[in-house]
Amino acid sequence: MVNQTFGDIDKLSVNTIRCLSADMVQKANSGHPGAPMGCAPMSHVLFTRHFKANPKNSNWLSRDRFVLSNGHASALQYSVYHLLGYDISLQDLKDFRQYKSKTPGHPEVGMTDGIEVTTGPLGQGISNAVGLAIAEAHLAKTFNRGDYKVFDNYTYAIVGDGCLEEGINYEAASLAGHYRLGKLIVLYDANGIQIDGSVEITFTENVLKRFEAQGWHVQEVADGNNDLEAISKAIEAAKAETNRPSIIKINTTIGFGSQKQGTEKVHGAPLGNDDVAFSKKSLGFNPEESFVVPPEVKKFYDAVCQEGVEAEKNYNKMYEKYAAEYPELAAEIERRKQNKLKEGWEDKLPRFTSKDAAVATRKLSQGVLNIVCNELPEIVGGSADLSGSNLTQWKGSVDFQADETGRGTYSGRFFHFGVREHVMAAIMNGISAYRFGFIPFGSTFLNFIAYASGAVRLSALSKHQVIYIMTHDSIGVGEDGPTHQPVEIIPNLRAYPNLYVMRPADGNEVSGCYLKALKSRSTPTVLCLTRQNIPQLEGSSIENTLKGGYVLSDPATTPKVILVGTGSEVSLCVEAAKLLNDEGIAARVVSLPCWEVFDEQPEEYRESVFPKNVPVLSVEAASTFGWSKYATASCGIDNFGVSAPAAQVFKHFGLVPDVIAEKAKKLL
Amino acid sequence: MVNQTFGDIDKLSVNTIRCLSADMVQKANSGHPGAPMGCAPMSHVLFTRHFKANPKNSNWLSRDRFVLSNGHASALQYSVYHLLGYDISLQDLKDFRQYKSKTPGHPEVGMTDGIEVTTGPLGQGISNAVGLAIAEAHLAKTFNRGDYKVFDNYTYAIVGDGCLEEGINYEAASLAGHYRLGKLIVLYDANGIQIDGSVEITFTENVLKRFEAQGWHVQEVADGNNDLEAISKAIEAAKAETNRPSIIKINTTIGFGSQKQGTEKVHGAPLGNDDVAFSKKSLGFNPEESFVVPPEVKKFYDAVCQEGVEAEKNYNKMYEKYAAEYPELAAEIERRKQNKLKEGWEDKLPRFTSKDAAVATRKLSQGVLNIVCNELPEIVGGSADLSGSNLTQWKGSVDFQADETGRGTYSGRFFHFGVREHVMAAIMNGISAYRFGFIPFGSTFLNFIAYASGAVRLSALSKHQVIYIMTHDSIGVGEDGPTHQPVEIIPNLRAYPNLYVMRPADGNEVSGCYLKALKSRSTPTVLCLTRQNIPQLEGSSIENTLKGGYVLSDPATTPKVILVGTGSEVSLCVEAAKLLNDEGIAARVVSLPCWEVFDEQPEEYRESVFPKNVPVLSVEAASTFGWSKYATASCGIDNFGVSAPAAQVFKHFGLVPDVIAEKAKKLL
Repeated sequence: MVNQTFGDIDKLSVNTIRCLSADMVQKANSGHPGAPMGCAPMSHVLFTRHFKANPKNSNWLSRDRFVLSNGHASALQYSVYHLLGYDISLQDLKDFRQYKSKTPGHPEVGMTDGIEVTTGPLGQGISNAVGLAIAEAHLAKTFNRGDYKVFDNYTYAIVGDGCLEEGINYEAASLAGHYRLGKLIVLYDANGIQIDGSVEITFTENVLKRFEAQGWHVQEVADGNNDLEAISKAIEAAKAETNRPSIIKINTTIGFGSQKQGTEKVHGAPLGNDDVAFSKKSLGFNPEESFVVPPEVKKFYDAVCQEGVEAEKNYNKMYEKYAAEYPELAAEIERRKQNKLKEGWEDKLPRFTSKDAAVATRKLSQGVLNIVCNELPEIVGGSADLSGSNLTQWKGSVDFQADETGRGTYSGRFFHFGVREHVMAAIMNGISAYRFGFIPFGSTFLNFIAYASGAVRLSALSKHQVIYIMTHDSIGVGEDGPTHQPVEIIPNLRAYPNLYVMRPADGNEVSGCYLKALKSRSTPTVLCLTRQNIPQLEGSSIENTLKGGYVLSDPATTPKVILVGTGSEVSLCVEAAKLLNDEGIAARVVSLPCWEVFDEQPEEYRESVFPKNVPVLSVEAASTFGWSKYATASCGIDNFGVSAPAAQVFKHFGLVPDVIAEKAKKLL
Repeated sequence: MVNQTFGDIDKLSVNTIRCLSADMVQKANSGHPGAPMGCAPMSHVLFTRHFKANPKNSNWLSRDRFVLSNGHASALQYSVYHLLGYDISLQDLKDFRQYKSKTPGHPEVGMTDGIEVTTGPLGQGISNAVGLAIAEAHLAKTFNRGDYKVFDNYTYAIVGDGCLEEGINYEAASLAGHYRLGKLIVLYDANGIQIDGSVEITFTENVLKRFEAQGWHVQEVADGNNDLEAISKAIEAAKAETNRPSIIKINTTIGFGSQKQGTEKVHGAPLGNDDVAFSKKSLGFNPEESFVVPPEVKKFYDAVCQEGVEAEKNYNKMYEKYAAEYPELAAEIERRKQNKLKEGWEDKLPRFTSKDAAVATRKLSQGVLNIVCNELPEIVGGSADLSGSNLTQWKGSVDFQADETGRGTYSGRFFHFGVREHVMAAIMNGISAYRFGFIPFGSTFLNFIAYASGAVRLSALSKHQVIYIMTHDSIGVGEDGPTHQPVEIIPNLRAYPNLYVMRPADGNEVSGCYLKALKSRSTPTVLCLTRQNIPQLEGSSIENTLKGGYVLSDPATTPKVILVGTGSEVSLCVEAAKLLNDEGIAARVVSLPCWEVFDEQPEEYRESVFPKNVPVLSVEAASTFGWSKYATASCGIDNFGVSAPAAQVFKHFGLVPDVIAEKAKKLL
């Protein structure tokens, strides 16, 4: 490891990062110089003295994970990663925030070498970090044997005051403390400034005391601008703390070195040419030059990089021995690294006939989980305190808990997330971001996915294969009333790019939806499942479901009207179609469990399902918003629900066969 | 005040509440008996010994406010309110959770006498309570004079473990502590049980230490099942604490008295007839009888009610003197009580011509706020740490802050909410729920309304007139990239019932949107505003805007194609239409600032805007989801955004006049 004492080269390196960051923002004429200039010291100390990584192979499994939770400080991450030798050139730094550059405004996974998670929306990063740390704890317990520490990494995050004000961060901290994630280390950039001014105007809680109350190990560094040794010692102490996550409050000056340092003015706008020049002078750099990396800094960082290269070599030697000794475990590791699913599990998915009993789709989902969770150990998941209602605790599941509590084990795969929907979603994203083939799921009532919207968006944007198992998906919840009856939620979700919204109508569709969700390695899925029993349908199949939508039943003659439904309303369509056909009105029934998958089908197929000039009536126990895409008219709920037994609520909203049939007739 | 010592009548009363609650759930065969049976003692003590209210006039301005944050315990609230003499009969208790009853599954404002806020979604209630306490502090400082305490009430909330796990509760606690809301008192029903089992499986933080870190006064009652005196003394001490909010951890047994007490089994399902009988026996009641209120309990509660009647009489006498001495203040109070807006303000709204300069709609919004906030003191609002970007801090605004901090005053009306979008929204709802004509607003970037979705839903469901001023409403944010560029958000919002989603296209439309929002006393509004400058349009007007949508410009001949846009894309439509008209293709331009208002217009008008058989191309820098309602084809963004200067991003997505014109031609 590089010399643990600190000297001139460190000061020079820190100021290099500060100047690079200021230059990037100035050249882009857009961005955030303040946090990078303030966080340069902690970043330099972390990445040169503590962080285990091989910048030449950012996929090394055993690398430490880093999350820049205050993602607006992206110039910091890019400039440090450039110095470290990741695939980010000086030109990339100059192209900061430009069209198609490798250095977008906020860190985006997939865009830039070494970036683990997409950050920017505050509070998400620290929550993803909890997911990353859970993943490590789980894999270490599952795969390590004796002295073979195949999985053995720390998860670091830098967070700002903004992150620590967001509700999600408290949920994350509460759960991380509960899980005793000793290898999670948070560096808190305490600069006392937020966009509106001093934190004193709104954020006066005792942050460290709060974290301590949540079960964390807490430390403070008085002078985070200059005292590199203190930062390093605090990180060392945090690493030594094995059964509590750590937070180090590092007092810094935002925009350190600039004329406007210590004020909100340096947060989100370029310093201006004058202040960039001023900053360079005050930091010992030539104000006439830009994007300068002094050769001794380059040399220093090259040595750090080389250490990383060597570290991976040593790891690989160790791993070879491990693989020889534990070939089955190694084979499993290879499978999961390559995102390959085991073979044969698909054949075990349950199939049904219309003679089978009516069952709630949440219950049918449980049947599938009992199979796939036992077949595919990369599935991990849990519930936001609704395990018995969501029915997601599969047969034989073991709770993920710190082993010393006696309540479970880190090799367990079921999470009691608590009533914390938002961080549940962000932890799913974080586990997925570990990049080891994980398929995380979370569950709650569909209505409460609203609490998690901020993280659902990042599931889709970051292409995480996560599955939201959302039960109690309509007014079918009955007596709990409008606060628990989703109405707008389903169209809400359909508006997201890269998100499959699935609402299966029976057992075959549940199996088909899981099959599609588990095979979609870069698209998250929301499964909307009923509380109430619904019948098994004639005409459904796993294969049909994989098309997103299909003709469930056709009349003897050319259809004059089409009834299209999803989930629990498909059986209503079947009954309404019977009424129509009995009256001599030829009615087709279409089941459309997933719009997005249906829209991926060839146009010809889609037109075979919805032929032009045949009127279409949609039936869904939700807001009709969006249905005009397929339907001429809609039966739905364009108001909030009501509290009453479910059958009465369906009747109240006209979601009964005779009303549907009458409405269909009006389309003729 | 009723005798402060506790005796047999109190025990009997507590057990009456327990048995009534168990009966209600059992008869409904649905609901939550556990929390009511555990919380009966604290409720009884609160409402008989401390709570200021006149059950015969639940609108009394000076009443204490009560929020049942664990709304699933609704049977508790209904049974206690029945005893207190609110307009809830024994029959209403028997009709619990039935169709059209006064006693829905979760408390719903407007459905039941005395219910202040709709609760059920966890964490919302305690956050609303912070809003209620802010409202009181603000009004007391604004209207009280000398010994005349016209506004003088406590805000109480009962919360469970679930509420205290949700992220929003921490945001609420942090801000309440910061604001030193001494008249906010939270009773924490600490029963150690949540739905998945013991709280030990997921919630092991030190709750009181956490609240203390957040600036709260904390107390604990060891035996909340029996020690009524300790509960009462703790409430007394909390009332005496004037500059910190208080939380009292009251240790209780969920389902107290039942066979299954102390387990999660009593949380969310009826006890069953056997256990109801067992409970009654153990609580000293006849297991053969149901819905029993012993006459001595009735008498006791009647006396409490009578005290409330007298208290209001005394208040009214005081108020009469106040009104005589301060007629102008009294007139203002009357105006606001009656939800009347002052006259004449509308005439001051700015109007523009197409010769005026291009301005960002967020800036135009600032111009309107500078007028209306100075005209209408019932407008209060703030920003989630983006004041300078949202431009919502109006001219002459004063910060709401505890006076002793020297940073503002309780009579101030601007809130630095911090980076806490979710509780910002819930506080807006809480302020509105004070029912004194408040029009609260909150502001952040449109993208981050996703963090507040759980509370936005309740704004709409509870018919709160609140205004979400959401700036940076599209890819127009440019370099910040996809994490900050809303795409799915606008259609998301349009799917809500009872929510106006407005996206004004220029200055006249901004004025019109505010006019509509400020006059809509039972509908919340989301204003989507640009970061970037956009031109003033020929043909726009306040009056047109009030229709939700209108023909902005027409060609000389009958239109062959219609371009419809919202916000910043309307001017793109105008340019594209020019290109088309220059080529001899008659193109109309429609501006559609608010779909929901447009849909309220007569069919004839709507058809005059969109005549049948004329193809329509929609243009909006957002997901095209939902546009099929009006449009034949759409220009939009069905993917996430990109980080680059705004003009390049618009070009990337084809949102430029020539591409739009080409697409329009294909519709002919």
